[in-house]
Amino acid sequence: MSAKNRLSQLAQRTVEQPISYLMREALARPELISLAAGFVDQASLPVESTHDALEHLLSQPAQGRAALQYSTTMGDPLLREILLSRLVSADQSTACKQSIEQVIVTAGSNELLYLIGLTLFDPGDIVFCAAPTYFVYLGALQSFGVRTVGLEVDTEGVVPQALTFAMEKYLTEGLGSRIKAIYLTTYFDNPSSITTSSNRRSELVEIVKRWNQKHDMMYIIEDAAYRDLRYYGDDIPSLLAADEDGDTVIHTSSFSKSFSPGLRVGWGVLPPELVHPISSQQGNINFGSPHFSQQAMIAILQQGSFEKHVEKIRMEYRKKLQAMLQAAEMHLGDLQNVSWLPATGGLYVWMCVAGIDTGADGPLFRRALDMGVLYVPGCHCFPKEGEPIQHDMIRLSFGVQSVERIEQGMHCLAKAVHEVLDKQPQTLPAEA
Amino acid sequence: MSAKNRLSQLAQRTVEQPISYLMREALARPELISLAAGFVDQASLPVESTHDALEHLLSQPAQGRAALQYSTTMGDPLLREILLSRLVSADQSTACKQSIEQVIVTAGSNELLYLIGLTLFDPGDIVFCAAPTYFVYLGALQSFGVRTVGLEVDTEGVVPQALTFAMEKYLTEGLGSRIKAIYLTTYFDNPSSITTSSNRRSELVEIVKRWNQKHDMMYIIEDAAYRDLRYYGDDIPSLLAADEDGDTVIHTSSFSKSFSPGLRVGWGVLPPELVHPISSQQGNINFGSPHFSQQAMIAILQQGSFEKHVEKIRMEYRKKLQAMLQAAEMHLGDLQNVSWLPATGGLYVWMCVAGIDTGADGPLFRRALDMGVLYVPGCHCFPKEGEPIQHDMIRLSFGVQSVERIEQGMHCLAKAVHEVLDKQPQTLPAEA
Repeated sequence: MSAKNRLSQLAQRTVEQPISYLMREALARPELISLAAGFVDQASLPVESTHDALEHLLSQPAQGRAALQYSTTMGDPLLREILLSRLVSADQSTACKQSIEQVIVTAGSNELLYLIGLTLFDPGDIVFCAAPTYFVYLGALQSFGVRTVGLEVDTEGVVPQALTFAMEKYLTEGLGSRIKAIYLTTYFDNPSSITTSSNRRSELVEIVKRWNQKHDMMYIIEDAAYRDLRYYGDDIPSLLAADEDGDTVIHTSSFSKSFSPGLRVGWGVLPPELVHPISSQQGNINFGSPHFSQQAMIAILQQGSFEKHVEKIRMEYRKKLQAMLQAAEMHLGDLQNVSWLPATGGLYVWMCVAGIDTGADGPLFRRALDMGVLYVPGCHCFPKEGEPIQHDMIRLSFGVQSVERIEQGMHCLAKAVHEVLDKQPQTLPAEA
Repeated sequence: MSAKNRLSQLAQRTVEQPISYLMREALARPELISLAAGFVDQASLPVESTHDALEHLLSQPAQGRAALQYSTTMGDPLLREILLSRLVSADQSTACKQSIEQVIVTAGSNELLYLIGLTLFDPGDIVFCAAPTYFVYLGALQSFGVRTVGLEVDTEGVVPQALTFAMEKYLTEGLGSRIKAIYLTTYFDNPSSITTSSNRRSELVEIVKRWNQKHDMMYIIEDAAYRDLRYYGDDIPSLLAADEDGDTVIHTSSFSKSFSPGLRVGWGVLPPELVHPISSQQGNINFGSPHFSQQAMIAILQQGSFEKHVEKIRMEYRKKLQAMLQAAEMHLGDLQNVSWLPATGGLYVWMCVAGIDTGADGPLFRRALDMGVLYVPGCHCFPKEGEPIQHDMIRLSFGVQSVERIEQGMHCLAKAVHEVLDKQPQTLPAEA
């Protein structure tokens, strides 16, 4: 019997992340311009402010020693206090509904999303997502055996009628009790770049709360990882702020995108009922995230370095975003088949190349590779059920590459698009 | 329907770690001398060498930026190379059977143990363990729905006949295919302090390999977290070194005990068949452990600070161990009912108070608390099946407290033991 068959059911359900083959391509051909990776800008990573913070931390022996010791599972109490008060302030809340007991620190928000999955989901459970949504979490949900159901989105976020329609559909099928959650990236969604509008936030929370009055409890998992990466317009309160009773929304966030993925400090706010179950899973895995990173983050926040850094990277990313959008306009603006959303934050531009299969086996992906540019085929970003998978979408990241490389990459991509489009009508008569 | 019933089956199987109530006691009464916590010595935590390493790392902008960026899921290639070559050297192997592709870095070895569980275990699967064994992993195994089966140990480790007997028992019951692994802490076991002898290592590996020739694959999970904490005698090669084909033993280790739990760098060596499945789970959870901690550890290892630190803490812990053993001898040596193993490394002394229920509801635990000392009741360290749970055992940690506090704590404990023993014969006639 092969080892394969000895794996757990969870491991057998786990499929390779689609990004893996992209990373292999990128590694094998370092000259490629990758507009695929969701990494952050390398040049602006905050070496100096981290240096200062650690200098401060480690020059105090007692505090240094504490940072090198274990912490409590849920995270350092001071950090949790700071995080909660920052959230209350950002949400312009007059009073804080939550206690620091509900705040949890994890190694990135992805770890918290995973802990939520471990705690809530069994095989056959149903989780609603935007279509498209964050494909890494789709992979984790697939491991848990969860049925992911994509909901229609417009420029304001998930369409409320799509949510109520899906709820009713599964209720009618006798599967109401299997609906466990809706997962929403509420700021600058990955990949669509859409921010859920304020009105939409209230509507979605209300729909779920109404459901919870009559049916088995479902949660809203709010992923706010990109909140700080806003380049235009004003911040708006979180989905959590719209949850009056604080029992429905699980809020997750992170400093990975806004400060450093290498320190890997993520965090969240849990409904009271879930504090104990989720922290128990965290205790089982790793007794909480590394204390040293948490202490570094405290110093960084207390020294005001975080705000300064966010200001700085907002300017950097705005330039990169502009470069990408301008290059798209310049090289692809003439094509009726090609359209994209004008992102105002985050790390992604979501582009439609109508009628062209953008997948790894389609004509565009290979042609783009030949031209020296890599993107994420949009098909990976769609849940398996619900809204149909769109095969003509592309996720473009502007986080990693320089402005020059972005322009160059977009130029290559545009050439590939033109070539593929040019070929299409020519091949038709030849086939006829 | 309450939220409780909406938890996943895994979450519903999860019970509170027994250590939790101990930690609450310790927090509520800070004057208590805790001989319960498995934390490391606070005073010797390596602030200076961490400071030097990070100074080195962050004064080089390019390297500093790299440390603040994402790494690959399995861990930094240079760190993995260093870890493997250190292991080969410690094992006195002439050639390296493993490649660095098999080396994985995790946030502590506990995270790796959890990843192994996710990858291999389904509810109803059987895992053999020493009786007693590491109770935190028993908790995780319970969450996975695993049946834990305790095997008899003697001073050389798990008794080979106990393993073959257990294998045959479940085979006869038609459950051979549910046997997935045996979990062994091979150096200074937590709590028993026993190191598996060299002969025993070969025997155990051979038994499992023989099983694997005829039956479904089972793995040996080697937990070597305490290997560097040796205070007497010479190091011996790992269980992994006895695995000629390298397909049977999963080796896990950590710098948490030997350097810093706050940085939280653990690692392991995986059989080739498990590399992909385990790294996939790691990708789902957190894309690998924090890169910054990994880079710090590289600098610490390259600067030679790690060896110096281990030398230093060996001396510190040896003093503490001596203090604990001498206090035990002085205050409890006269009692026939009381015995303990002379630990030669690790962080624990495993003590028997024959005939006395040492559990949280028994007479000794409360009396000891009243006297101002906290210990871990041994009953928590036993798997649910197999060897019967021993209710008269105590786990004593000498890692956290100073020599003076250890002497004081042991004195209090001894008084409590004497009192409880004195009362026992008196209560018998009164009941008669």
